[in-house]
Amino acid sequence: MLAGHRTWVFDQKPVIISTGTVGGPFEANGMLANDFDLLHSDLWLKQDTYEQAHRVLFEEACQKAMEKGGLRKEQVQFLLGGDLINQMTPTSFASGTLGTPYLGLFGACSTSMEGLALGAYIVNTKGAKYLLTGASSHNAAVEKQFRYPTEYGAQKPPTSQWTVTGAGAALLSDEGEGPHVTSATIGRVVDMGLTDPLNMGGAMAPAAVDTIEAHLRERNLDPSYYDLIVTGDLGRVGHEVSLDLLKKHGTPIQEEQYKDCGLMIYREGQPVLAGASGPGCSATVVYGHLLNRMKKGEFKRMLVVATGALLSPLSFQQGETIPCIAHAVSIEYGGE
Amino acid sequence: MLAGHRTWVFDQKPVIISTGTVGGPFEANGMLANDFDLLHSDLWLKQDTYEQAHRVLFEEACQKAMEKGGLRKEQVQFLLGGDLINQMTPTSFASGTLGTPYLGLFGACSTSMEGLALGAYIVNTKGAKYLLTGASSHNAAVEKQFRYPTEYGAQKPPTSQWTVTGAGAALLSDEGEGPHVTSATIGRVVDMGLTDPLNMGGAMAPAAVDTIEAHLRERNLDPSYYDLIVTGDLGRVGHEVSLDLLKKHGTPIQEEQYKDCGLMIYREGQPVLAGASGPGCSATVVYGHLLNRMKKGEFKRMLVVATGALLSPLSFQQGETIPCIAHAVSIEYGGE
Repeated sequence: MLAGHRTWVFDQKPVIISTGTVGGPFEANGMLANDFDLLHSDLWLKQDTYEQAHRVLFEEACQKAMEKGGLRKEQVQFLLGGDLINQMTPTSFASGTLGTPYLGLFGACSTSMEGLALGAYIVNTKGAKYLLTGASSHNAAVEKQFRYPTEYGAQKPPTSQWTVTGAGAALLSDEGEGPHVTSATIGRVVDMGLTDPLNMGGAMAPAAVDTIEAHLRERNLDPSYYDLIVTGDLGRVGHEVSLDLLKKHGTPIQEEQYKDCGLMIYREGQPVLAGASGPGCSATVVYGHLLNRMKKGEFKRMLVVATGALLSPLSFQQGETIPCIAHAVSIEYGGE
Repeated sequence: MLAGHRTWVFDQKPVIISTGTVGGPFEANGMLANDFDLLHSDLWLKQDTYEQAHRVLFEEACQKAMEKGGLRKEQVQFLLGGDLINQMTPTSFASGTLGTPYLGLFGACSTSMEGLALGAYIVNTKGAKYLLTGASSHNAAVEKQFRYPTEYGAQKPPTSQWTVTGAGAALLSDEGEGPHVTSATIGRVVDMGLTDPLNMGGAMAPAAVDTIEAHLRERNLDPSYYDLIVTGDLGRVGHEVSLDLLKKHGTPIQEEQYKDCGLMIYREGQPVLAGASGPGCSATVVYGHLLNRMKKGEFKRMLVVATGALLSPLSFQQGETIPCIAHAVSIEYGGE
């Protein structure tokens, strides 16, 4: 199981038997609209508050995953998930609706892979027959919290990113058909002393690099083992910084195999500045678009490196730096 | 490993090889002062902000645990923990200081046992040789966030509780000497429709009862198996409500064996109204006082049921109910 200090190898190959992905209007106009199970034409989802809409996004993603996997909620043993909202109320309320035993996770935008790592670990070691894991974000709920008052319409610098309105969930089991989760490397906090909350990609890049290099080292793999190494939401700035760092460290990574979910989901011309972000970014892109491509046989092995900036509006106001983290999970399909 | 739908039994008996507990001035005047490794005479811990002081509490608890366990931080593979502050910055910054691979958990005041459950699971299945888990809270940082503006000095009703300033951490391993973690039952969200954030104990009581009953049912145990069944922070009101519910359901629990950490830590006469609360409450009482008593041979088997109210100031303002959860972990020592 343990391969090195912070890497687990899953010898029982837990299976992602189904996924559910839900998006909002901006995502419906994006590049990956066809990869969502459900798209909403407005941000309210018939709810009274953005936070309730956020909750519904996650509920729907979980329900879609169960529906596609042919499972009733009573069969699901655990739900592992989280979001960015204070005290994670959208995920907690959703878990109440589903009634599933619940392990709340906080990893900011890295939550998707924190959940997949722990979920695959639990399934691999027979701690559950079926479990759900996922993450979500809602643009308006998150903006309200991090950029209040949004009504001022403050202009953002080109380094800033657009929070995805979306939720992605995966149903894992120890048997069944689908992509396998083969290993995971847990991130540590990397804090380079940056303090600009409008350049989160730049802040997170070193954490992504730290985790990628730890993963390759502890598994004794060459980057070429993976058809795709995909980060969560580094955006344009962070993607370039991380690529520079990897090259500088002599990690033989190819630009063609190194991508970022935050640069995939929106269309050229959408006003998203440096790209997408939010826990829903990697969750929807991986559990929708990327697994769909795997199932079509476009590639066989990918390493997903979800990145998170663990700051808060208060820590920023108090002049603190931005602690960042990245968790990596490898998913393989059709390679056996 | 799996005993029932949401209970794990740890056949390899992961060991709590050491713990660290740190408290503030109110705790120093409390009933359990002698059980803390470190007590601070003021709330600032020489820091500029309460949030930084909160971070230091957790760092010190982890450092104490490592020191007492004779380990260097490089030997610790994972840190599993969390707190109540928005985006959990105190725990994340502390994990940056320690440099340990980090899995952030959010379970409000149930975080201590969410972490111990997952940590013991990972050690039991050889996913780590050594890991740290813990939780913390800081009275002034939490009050500021949940009861702002605290300067108004708003009077509180007798049902409200006092947030502990404290941190507790446990170092787990698959070998060594100390109390064993023998099983865990993961909670589900129980929401009885209560909305009063100043009666959290009453809101959480049904979640505690749900988890205790699930644990006994899935492990097929009579409550008398445990010398002590101890809830996290139900306080006076929640403790009575939960006892009533257990009796009403015919669960044969004795009042003498059923206690609450929130009713242990402070002294009669301290102005804490219905008792103590906060993630640091069960973390310090269990990892300090209760394990000390176990090591003295006062009792052999306990079930710790840490309770959490997963609300936020915003969810309250929006008229939402309080979703509650409780995670139970059994610890045994000297019974073999």
